[in-house]
Amino acid sequence: MKAYVLYSGGKDSSLIAILLKRIGVHVEFVTANFGVYESYIPASKSAESLGINHNILNLDKNILEKAVDIILKDGFPNNGITYLHKIVVENLADLANENNFSTIADGTRRDDRTPKLDKSEIQSLEDRKNIQYVNLDSFGYKTIENLVSNLFEINIEESNRDNSSDYEVEIRYLIDNEKNINSKDLFPKHFQTRVIGLR
Amino acid sequence: MKAYVLYSGGKDSSLIAILLKRIGVHVEFVTANFGVYESYIPASKSAESLGINHNILNLDKNILEKAVDIILKDGFPNNGITYLHKIVVENLADLANENNFSTIADGTRRDDRTPKLDKSEIQSLEDRKNIQYVNLDSFGYKTIENLVSNLFEINIEESNRDNSSDYEVEIRYLIDNEKNINSKDLFPKHFQTRVIGLR
Repeated sequence: MKAYVLYSGGKDSSLIAILLKRIGVHVEFVTANFGVYESYIPASKSAESLGINHNILNLDKNILEKAVDIILKDGFPNNGITYLHKIVVENLADLANENNFSTIADGTRRDDRTPKLDKSEIQSLEDRKNIQYVNLDSFGYKTIENLVSNLFEINIEESNRDNSSDYEVEIRYLIDNEKNINSKDLFPKHFQTRVIGLR
Repeated sequence: MKAYVLYSGGKDSSLIAILLKRIGVHVEFVTANFGVYESYIPASKSAESLGINHNILNLDKNILEKAVDIILKDGFPNNGITYLHKIVVENLADLANENNFSTIADGTRRDDRTPKLDKSEIQSLEDRKNIQYVNLDSFGYKTIENLVSNLFEINIEESNRDNSSDYEVEIRYLIDNEKNINSKDLFPKHFQTRVIGLR
């Protein structure tokens, strides 16, 4: 059994990967990139620290532009990020089919709201793409905190464009450099948790 | 981190246990018993084959009688079994609190309908009992089949009172022996999958 895990270098996507690996699944990481900024580099370093192969899924810049349009129209990022995530997952399923991976996974968890596939979207994805989809719905917030702090060495820093592989990085790069808008007004400051190895 | 896993000896509850164990959780099994029949014995054998400690949670026969009343009134078992499962999970949470286990788990999965706690019931349970609850919601049917067949040696037999630790065994025993009703009319014949070791 082979699984592609959508990867940001964060604790949630690291957890689902290690969990699958420990029960015998061949796991590889995949980070989406829209050709705007090399935002996959932090994820790549985290992947290396876990000894798991890391792949880049190159997607069209138009997809990112559509997400940015949604975010600028809304004045907040949630719907644009959800739009992006769903397209990334669809493309991850295609990549899995191409390379004979039976399964795709992401680090969304029971308590997450966005970006997240609901039950009917999961069912639709699995049926249309003939793929198996896995996430962290088994676990609540507290359990994930406990598991993560037992499993991983973590680095916590204020988020910036070079320590994060979240969708946010390329979204903000595009807004700041092509839209003449300061993305700081749309994205609150936050801390970035990046996995830097197993304990 | 310590977790009690509600255990039938079946593949789903075995999977959640092994999964937690492999990511560093101290796991023990618990099987509920209502004092009507020693239905925990098959689960006990499965637990031993996995090298995981097995505990019996002794509950009042009244709870089983209430479930049987529901089943006989409905003419089918789903609601009665769901009633029973929810009470068992509440009592498992109390046992966990008594013994300083932070977490309880069961083998219900994304595609299950009954017996299953929905999201709001999980939230309520965790809040009221100050407990963490885990299940197999991360995974769909196909993924669980694949994981299980890679992980476990399985024994498949037509279900009977002495090869299963499902709620069904004590429910049927009570119906057959105290209600003068043949429980065969309420429960369809089915095959019992019992874990007999790791591959």
